[in-house]
Amino acid sequence: MLDTLEKTNTKTVAAAELQSTGTSFLDELFDKGLLIATGVDGLYGRSGLFEEIGEGFQALVSRYGKADEPEVVRFPPAMNRTVFEKSGYMKSFPQLAGTVHCFCGDAANHISLLQTIEQNGDWTAGQVASEIVLTPAACYPLYPAAANRGPLPAEGRLFDLMSYCFRHEPSRDPARQQLFRMREFVRMGTPDQVTEFRATWLERGQKLIGELCMPFKLDVANDPFFGRTGKMLAVNQRDQRLKFELLIPIESEENPTACLSFNYHQDHFGKTFGLTTDTGAVAHTACVGFGHERVILALLKHHGTDVKRWPASVRKALWG
Amino acid sequence: MLDTLEKTNTKTVAAAELQSTGTSFLDELFDKGLLIATGVDGLYGRSGLFEEIGEGFQALVSRYGKADEPEVVRFPPAMNRTVFEKSGYMKSFPQLAGTVHCFCGDAANHISLLQTIEQNGDWTAGQVASEIVLTPAACYPLYPAAANRGPLPAEGRLFDLMSYCFRHEPSRDPARQQLFRMREFVRMGTPDQVTEFRATWLERGQKLIGELCMPFKLDVANDPFFGRTGKMLAVNQRDQRLKFELLIPIESEENPTACLSFNYHQDHFGKTFGLTTDTGAVAHTACVGFGHERVILALLKHHGTDVKRWPASVRKALWG
Repeated sequence: MLDTLEKTNTKTVAAAELQSTGTSFLDELFDKGLLIATGVDGLYGRSGLFEEIGEGFQALVSRYGKADEPEVVRFPPAMNRTVFEKSGYMKSFPQLAGTVHCFCGDAANHISLLQTIEQNGDWTAGQVASEIVLTPAACYPLYPAAANRGPLPAEGRLFDLMSYCFRHEPSRDPARQQLFRMREFVRMGTPDQVTEFRATWLERGQKLIGELCMPFKLDVANDPFFGRTGKMLAVNQRDQRLKFELLIPIESEENPTACLSFNYHQDHFGKTFGLTTDTGAVAHTACVGFGHERVILALLKHHGTDVKRWPASVRKALWG
Repeated sequence: MLDTLEKTNTKTVAAAELQSTGTSFLDELFDKGLLIATGVDGLYGRSGLFEEIGEGFQALVSRYGKADEPEVVRFPPAMNRTVFEKSGYMKSFPQLAGTVHCFCGDAANHISLLQTIEQNGDWTAGQVASEIVLTPAACYPLYPAAANRGPLPAEGRLFDLMSYCFRHEPSRDPARQQLFRMREFVRMGTPDQVTEFRATWLERGQKLIGELCMPFKLDVANDPFFGRTGKMLAVNQRDQRLKFELLIPIESEENPTACLSFNYHQDHFGKTFGLTTDTGAVAHTACVGFGHERVILALLKHHGTDVKRWPASVRKALWG
């Protein structure tokens, strides 16, 4: 009850601050030095304070997940292009992907490249695709690595992941960045094992965000599938309730931002990467994802940019 | 003295283990689950234990740098392409850079793209360069951001950075990864301020690695400049003693690996990005860089993969 009151008060103060300066939330974050402009929308530096809030949040997530003893694995922010091609990502989300290209030329090519740069020409046309693409979601590199170990044990597996992810969608909404971090727990096993995992986290996620004294709603959702065929995929995903999101207002009250997502992939990744259970059946998978920057931004929006004035209970949840 | 003895013993055991299995250090790391193969040389997942060693190392670095009160800033693993072009990186190291390319087509282009993937054709040719390139060294995105703040204060500035960096040099040497993390302290100010900073860290760096009980040597070094002109740049860099490296044997005794580097950029970045001191002079810059994965790998190589058997003093330095 006290928490709720505190939350409401703090929120009003923060909202008033924004209105009085007449700037957007992104400008406010730049002004306070919490984010640092790079000249590209959706690509920002983070201050030490921004990172400390994030560390507090990650420690909280770890506490909620600890009893399940997940196996910690961390992948770099890019992945094998062959695996990426196999995943079907270019079928569903071609507009969001980022491939990494390199210079493979000789000294003569180099001279011509430098001349093109000097003349402000398009020097990138000569770049050749490397064997690497940027990671679109923290769990993508995991599936083939897990399949490499052979069939799952009877109890299935549970992984704890986090990495920078890339999505090409330049925006002035600070909650829609091109490079952002995603924490994920990924469960692999029988349909029962993975749907139970997702149900558990649907409860835990709400409790966790409740501890941070932020308003939220839970809703059925769909991924941003590309094109007309994509619309059908989205409808199908919603009808089957394969994706839920926990939404918190950040940039707008009417269109709150998905900060956590709870996904049941059925046998999609199991089939694609040959992941099987101990009985030889195709494994099912599910994951819960935490938008690292989004939760930090939601905290700054709802409790204000002066962290010392945040509700005591929120500070305790983050930093003990 | 005791430390030295412990170090020597542990090292002998680790070396013997590697010899008895007849595998490379990379295979050993895969077998023990410390690194996870992705099918691309130089692109690996990391286990929870690998990351814990890294966290211990980073905390140690922070302790050594704390008294200077650096400003903590964290950039994502990619940067603004325009800034990158301006930096001159493509002039010196074109072979290492990674540009990020995206799909900008319509529904018809998408259908043709999917057909190309299905036929194992080169679908990447249609990808268009985005406004983003992968970060080649943690400090590159910092210079324009610092210059944006106006002239430096009289005491200059000091930053604490860390990010994933990309260098396109596929290799089976685990100490030469395509995506790896670099921690950096960057000093900006007068020539005296920045050369004093570098001299301090040349001392601190040796003390720090000494605490981790690893053999090392300090040497004048050069960056891997491209082509024939690059050879001259390298000679010049060495003659002026602009780059020192702290080297630890990892993959080979004869060719030890640079784990820390100490760089004096003179006015290169100041001139390029319009960074000035309080008197209006072009600012000089220097940095000390820590190869995150390289130090972890050096620890695993010299003290063995069984962390519980590491010398007590090393465990204390890392984890208190």
